[in-house]
Amino acid sequence: METPPIPHPFDWRVLNSRYIVHDRWLGLRADACQVPSGAVLDPYYILELPDYINVVAITPRQEVVLVREYRHGAAQTILELPSGRVDAGEDALVAAQRELLEETGFSGPAFQHLCTLSPNPANHTNRVYSFLATGVEHVQEMQPDASEQIEVVLLPLAQVIEMLYANQFIQAMHASALFYALRRLDIR
Amino acid sequence: METPPIPHPFDWRVLNSRYIVHDRWLGLRADACQVPSGAVLDPYYILELPDYINVVAITPRQEVVLVREYRHGAAQTILELPSGRVDAGEDALVAAQRELLEETGFSGPAFQHLCTLSPNPANHTNRVYSFLATGVEHVQEMQPDASEQIEVVLLPLAQVIEMLYANQFIQAMHASALFYALRRLDIR
Repeated sequence: METPPIPHPFDWRVLNSRYIVHDRWLGLRADACQVPSGAVLDPYYILELPDYINVVAITPRQEVVLVREYRHGAAQTILELPSGRVDAGEDALVAAQRELLEETGFSGPAFQHLCTLSPNPANHTNRVYSFLATGVEHVQEMQPDASEQIEVVLLPLAQVIEMLYANQFIQAMHASALFYALRRLDIR
Repeated sequence: METPPIPHPFDWRVLNSRYIVHDRWLGLRADACQVPSGAVLDPYYILELPDYINVVAITPRQEVVLVREYRHGAAQTILELPSGRVDAGEDALVAAQRELLEETGFSGPAFQHLCTLSPNPANHTNRVYSFLATGVEHVQEMQPDASEQIEVVLLPLAQVIEMLYANQFIQAMHASALFYALRRLDIR
């Protein structure tokens, strides 16, 4: 889904690069970068994380499938879209279908790609793929990871829209996905 | 602009915490966390970064002030909103006014807060504050940091909207800001 970047005179040159953390959870790189003016930025930290997915999943009764989960960065339990990491070699669409099913027990016949974004192109190498899933139904018990405690919350789409407009979904990648979903659903 | 988080039974308990990186650019913490089921996640990495701001700045001729800049995470030079970090002790609005002026030489009489989001509440402690600035004018030469090479690009608002809808702004925090700006401007 990506085209290679087009070289540009503003591009930096990497003089050297070392890993500070490189385990199954995180790659943290410290690069020494020469900018076009000649100045060297060292260390310039780069985060290598897996690609992410999230899903705006809507039932035939126009309810959105949300999850309540503790988020340790924000140090609070919040309401979010179902989301997760793309496994190595996995297709983003397959990851979205898998995560929705595992986290919520919901599945649906119609997943469509909404947008592909960067969590932060300044320091993240990964991408986040957002999908819209319509006509989703509860088909099995949820199967979260052992470390995940998740409450599935169904809210009317109209209420989710009001919450979005009121800045109540604090996750930037989820707010974007919701806005793209509203456009796709032709809700202005 | 924040209320303290409300405690919730899903919240984790931090058993211990250590810094892997703690310099002026990045705090990377490895926490050992006990989840309510009793399982322990160790290490759970948390990124401590300064708060961010970005600005949707619009001239009286309905042009949006954008910047073309190299972004080393994405490894490409891209078009973005003017954005930056909030200095320690600085107000987010002041940071937004400062960064717009430094990066672009534009300033304006009317900044309004659009939204406050988290880059990623799973692993980021910081927030990103987005502002709408209308009636901005070019008032001085841009004064980027020595390491910043920035091209200021003015594009008609209508074109920026088309680019947003076409998923051409890859920065999740900037896409969100643009959608909130369109709502504030009553453009549906």
